[in-house]
Amino acid sequence: MKAEILAIGTELLGATRLDTNSLELTRELAALGMEVVAKHVLPDRTADLAASIAAATARVPLVICTGGLGPTEDDRTRDAAALALGCSLLRDPVAEAWIRNFFAQRQRAMPPANLRQADRLASAEWLPNTTGTAPGQWCPTPSGWLALLPGPPREMRHVFHNALRPRLRALAPPHAFFTSVLCLASVSESDVDAVAAPLYRVCDNPETTILATGEPQIELHFRASASTLAAAQALADGLAQQVERQLIAALGDVVISHQSEPLASAVGRRLAARGQTLAVAESCTGGLLGARLTDSPGASEFFLGGVISYSNSAKVDLLGVSPELLDSDGAVSAACAEAMAEGVRRRFAADWGLAVTGIAGPSGATPSKPVGMVYIGLAAAGQPPKHLHLALHGDRDRIRRFSAQRALHELFRHLR
Amino acid sequence: MKAEILAIGTELLGATRLDTNSLELTRELAALGMEVVAKHVLPDRTADLAASIAAATARVPLVICTGGLGPTEDDRTRDAAALALGCSLLRDPVAEAWIRNFFAQRQRAMPPANLRQADRLASAEWLPNTTGTAPGQWCPTPSGWLALLPGPPREMRHVFHNALRPRLRALAPPHAFFTSVLCLASVSESDVDAVAAPLYRVCDNPETTILATGEPQIELHFRASASTLAAAQALADGLAQQVERQLIAALGDVVISHQSEPLASAVGRRLAARGQTLAVAESCTGGLLGARLTDSPGASEFFLGGVISYSNSAKVDLLGVSPELLDSDGAVSAACAEAMAEGVRRRFAADWGLAVTGIAGPSGATPSKPVGMVYIGLAAAGQPPKHLHLALHGDRDRIRRFSAQRALHELFRHLR
Repeated sequence: MKAEILAIGTELLGATRLDTNSLELTRELAALGMEVVAKHVLPDRTADLAASIAAATARVPLVICTGGLGPTEDDRTRDAAALALGCSLLRDPVAEAWIRNFFAQRQRAMPPANLRQADRLASAEWLPNTTGTAPGQWCPTPSGWLALLPGPPREMRHVFHNALRPRLRALAPPHAFFTSVLCLASVSESDVDAVAAPLYRVCDNPETTILATGEPQIELHFRASASTLAAAQALADGLAQQVERQLIAALGDVVISHQSEPLASAVGRRLAARGQTLAVAESCTGGLLGARLTDSPGASEFFLGGVISYSNSAKVDLLGVSPELLDSDGAVSAACAEAMAEGVRRRFAADWGLAVTGIAGPSGATPSKPVGMVYIGLAAAGQPPKHLHLALHGDRDRIRRFSAQRALHELFRHLR
Repeated sequence: MKAEILAIGTELLGATRLDTNSLELTRELAALGMEVVAKHVLPDRTADLAASIAAATARVPLVICTGGLGPTEDDRTRDAAALALGCSLLRDPVAEAWIRNFFAQRQRAMPPANLRQADRLASAEWLPNTTGTAPGQWCPTPSGWLALLPGPPREMRHVFHNALRPRLRALAPPHAFFTSVLCLASVSESDVDAVAAPLYRVCDNPETTILATGEPQIELHFRASASTLAAAQALADGLAQQVERQLIAALGDVVISHQSEPLASAVGRRLAARGQTLAVAESCTGGLLGARLTDSPGASEFFLGGVISYSNSAKVDLLGVSPELLDSDGAVSAACAEAMAEGVRRRFAADWGLAVTGIAGPSGATPSKPVGMVYIGLAAAGQPPKHLHLALHGDRDRIRRFSAQRALHELFRHLR
């Protein structure tokens, strides 16, 4: 089934923001065997929007709009859809009660404009949203369906998964899909592709996609279709295993998971399984490593805490790094990383201590310690601490993200 | 002058790639006083493309297409534009000679298909490209102009700057733009809109946009146009100041900046200006507050570091929270937040100590301490510590982000 996506919001037409919802929707639709044949970014102007919605519904059987469902005057998607389909908007008493209750529960006064979010296209069903006050809508068109989703990515995702996807699945042809995943760390997309492409390029089914996430992590998705789920899984797993063997042979210990999960979760699973604990000491990452480790619930099972030792005095006072070592080797050094890791491990009485110290830039570099020089320290009870030296490139944000990820990967490898 | 941008290429309709050329074009057009009113991503299908180009040229005076000018079979933009405008394509002998020469100079054989790049719309002028073999085209339409630019960003940029911009400048009225910004924290988009809409709705110039970012922060952009920059600035600033006064009267101390910047940067600027330092103690945010504070360069001027006290023992051992207090009030309490803030302040000998403790969920709640209960502690030298109680809703990620942001805002307010 062909689909078009309309991303609605004047703010998406400026020089700084891109519509990213459509990438996620495209992936989800592809998993249902549906193809996005055009995407549009449109302003919050009722007449223009109505014309675009009407034209899209005439071209393809499925049209998905994101955005413009908020409570404010410049949220025009409801009005435009009503104009485009020639149907009226009704104020829905159940939705109105729900919105009033949403505010009452939070003991906040409801701005009157919020009631606009209870306006439903006369022929539409609600797509409920429990993460905000903007529900979606699902409405028949002369030649198919129109879905209205909220614009904030969290809410869009929630409404899609809980309310829209089941309806789309009912429309999709009876076909089974299965996606096998390889999740990789500490490798570049092009290195992975150089190894994997000769294997995946020769076949259309599974279809292979390489995704690079901001963590940074690389994911390979092998999506197979067949008449039964078991047959699709056999196809997808078969290629995934073949590629995995080649990747390990060529690039070493880079596979961290067979599901789409952040490395921090995989580290947490391994620590929890061993009944072991972790403490972190962070300099250039400034708390990012701790934030990653506590992103997922259940972190208190294995994560005791950490020290953000942004200043040298914190390294001495809280982590027990010796002032002499700081004088001789400096804060960005192998010895300091090891001392930080061992210091935080002892301080928290943890099984493992993990430390990061480096130059994230743009300032702070010296001729012998350039921007991107980072040391990871790793300490385990009863063993001498170890370190890893990294020479990262890119801007401050990239160096910090890569430092946190490489630190997690180093620990992960020691938890085999 | 209104413009639409058509990004052409089936590869831009997958789940991984976004059209980024349009951001750059939007910025360049804005500098010429031209406004992008819609953007489209379209596949390499001649008939669909032709319909889209024809519709866009009917809607707006300026249509810019990027991509689909390459030498291969699936580069269809030339053919589609010819269909859309009802004009013929001519093989241009000068362009043909230029392409032949391009290959000859590089001592490479010319694939015959490359000659398609010498096909010009009968009524078009070339927009020369010296960085590749795909020249652009510039063609009158019944109600304005159609520009065809190559898709690779380097080539697009080159052709735009050298050939298209001079032509656009000749069309643009002498017009200047200025955008004033109000950056707000600890308020919802709908609360802001309830106050601001009565003021901004009555005028088209400045044009007002409300943006909600993930921090979470709200930004109001007031974009004014006039014949001179000073006049545009006066218009934009005038409305911004009026809205700011109303917001402060209705919602209190919510304006954090007059530029688009993260709250952590604004906090850092104020601390640095006072020559004061900060240390943080984090429980439920797990490092997020420290990560935010160190996102921008120069954080070492004011940020000494912190303690991630994810476990109770860390609160006692590193922050000096008394075990009796943890027994009587618990880790998620006003008293504990204050003790953490004062403890970390003393520990780092900082001017300010900022602490967060709370239930981020989904587990860990008790009847008296629900998910979303968060306490912020703030300590300053020579003053008794203070606290702020929050009852946040949403999922773990939202509660953590809001906790960090509200903590920063609490400190920010004390730095006036």
